[in-house]
Amino acid sequence: MAKKDKPARKRPTESVTDALRVPPGAHVSLTTYPADATPVGPGEKAAGVAATALLGEPLADLQERLYAASTAGDSCRLLLVLQGMDTSGKGGTVKHVIGQFNPSGCRIRAFKAPTEEERAHSFLWRITKALPEAGEIGIFDRSHYEDVLIGRVRELAPPEEIERRYDQINTFERSLAESGVTIVKVFLHISYEQQKRRLLERLDNPRKYWKFNPGDIDERALWPAYQQAYEIALRRCSSEAAPWFVVPADRKWYRNWAVSNLLLEHLSALDPQYPKADFDVEECRKRLLELG
Amino acid sequence: MAKKDKPARKRPTESVTDALRVPPGAHVSLTTYPADATPVGPGEKAAGVAATALLGEPLADLQERLYAASTAGDSCRLLLVLQGMDTSGKGGTVKHVIGQFNPSGCRIRAFKAPTEEERAHSFLWRITKALPEAGEIGIFDRSHYEDVLIGRVRELAPPEEIERRYDQINTFERSLAESGVTIVKVFLHISYEQQKRRLLERLDNPRKYWKFNPGDIDERALWPAYQQAYEIALRRCSSEAAPWFVVPADRKWYRNWAVSNLLLEHLSALDPQYPKADFDVEECRKRLLELG
Repeated sequence: MAKKDKPARKRPTESVTDALRVPPGAHVSLTTYPADATPVGPGEKAAGVAATALLGEPLADLQERLYAASTAGDSCRLLLVLQGMDTSGKGGTVKHVIGQFNPSGCRIRAFKAPTEEERAHSFLWRITKALPEAGEIGIFDRSHYEDVLIGRVRELAPPEEIERRYDQINTFERSLAESGVTIVKVFLHISYEQQKRRLLERLDNPRKYWKFNPGDIDERALWPAYQQAYEIALRRCSSEAAPWFVVPADRKWYRNWAVSNLLLEHLSALDPQYPKADFDVEECRKRLLELG
Repeated sequence: MAKKDKPARKRPTESVTDALRVPPGAHVSLTTYPADATPVGPGEKAAGVAATALLGEPLADLQERLYAASTAGDSCRLLLVLQGMDTSGKGGTVKHVIGQFNPSGCRIRAFKAPTEEERAHSFLWRITKALPEAGEIGIFDRSHYEDVLIGRVRELAPPEEIERRYDQINTFERSLAESGVTIVKVFLHISYEQQKRRLLERLDNPRKYWKFNPGDIDERALWPAYQQAYEIALRRCSSEAAPWFVVPADRKWYRNWAVSNLLLEHLSALDPQYPKADFDVEECRKRLLELG
């Protein structure tokens, strides 16, 4: 798993997908997994930033091909699910990684505490409404996993219902995969210390007050319970159809590099193709020229 | 929203807003308005590209302030309406201009031919559902104006209904403005010759086939009728509350420069502010430090 000295490109070896994926059923011990690790790819910032910058063009190119393919009936789409504790960088990932794409092909949804209407439905109801359409890249900033994370920690539902949700999620995600959705679930793993630094930053900078909520401290006080809830979700819901990836996120540049590469590898595997013309190119050219 | 005499920001020269705005009731003769003009700002490409690149940071900064202000209850939002003939660069504007923003604060909607459900409602129904929320930047790639453009040219509704729509649009847009929406309506003005070049490019490049539709040629054959329909819409629907801007769009770099500046000037005029803390900063810092 350690690839610290490897040059960023011409990597003949392990993919980021392989290196960061949680194998189905595997237990990830978050307390022993360093959040500032660089388990694959560049080990220091300058190389990481440079390597990430080089991904912008191929990512945008793949996205255009994905979208173009959908115009000819290809149902493929990609869904990036971002989860992580407060300040883990979900918003920063959208800004820096998703910012590399053409915004018109992105469908971004941030999930907050459910509204009354949403609570009146199954926890997957609001998720279903926010899914990407064919050719799009969907991004969930938080997701249905909140219902087995804060839902579990805060006991927002009876234990037996929380239990049922893991299977419901797996069934749901498998059906998505079967309908053409490539699901990339990313847990942005930060350390307790890093969260403290980032929360204090928000209190030290009036331009960041709006990102802060006193309730964030109450959640932080429940850190061990949240880490455990994440471990359970990672173990029970990392499936072949929809694997989880643990991205060490104490270093923002590494987080951006890793998520960019995960997207690149998954889009490359889809290998979307520009569709052939479904019209007579020569005849259209002729008509155009005749029209003057 | 008209701040005609108020210099936006120590800019010694004319604002782009003033230079490109269609005064309410004014007639714009598109046939005599050169689509490759550079009526304000840089006159050649290198300077234009460089000037546009410098706008990315202030645009992203203003967007963050707009969003931050909304978290404290500010209802302000911005809606960019993009209209123009096929190949005029609506998609390119989204990619290059809107691509400068944080995608999480953008709500983009491309309007195609209305679905059966949409046709069962008023033409403004689907528009209302796609509006930006407080703090967001909304982008319409085509809009309710299609209903007085293709609607008029193709006689998709009785003439008296088309007539009524201009007033309905003005009433609708005024109510949006009153509810905190800054509306920036941009007509991307290209020449007949430039459209021919761009359509031929799509036929010459298999990676662009998916952007081409033989129906585009049929629409092109109706060019004069469309130009007239645009002239009418510009004259009747450029209001104080929601002015139209004519952006010469034969030169893509100029189009990007002009739309970027229109957004910058309108966001600067809103001058959104980071909200003050609605919590006790010192107490929160203390609690955080105590928590360890």
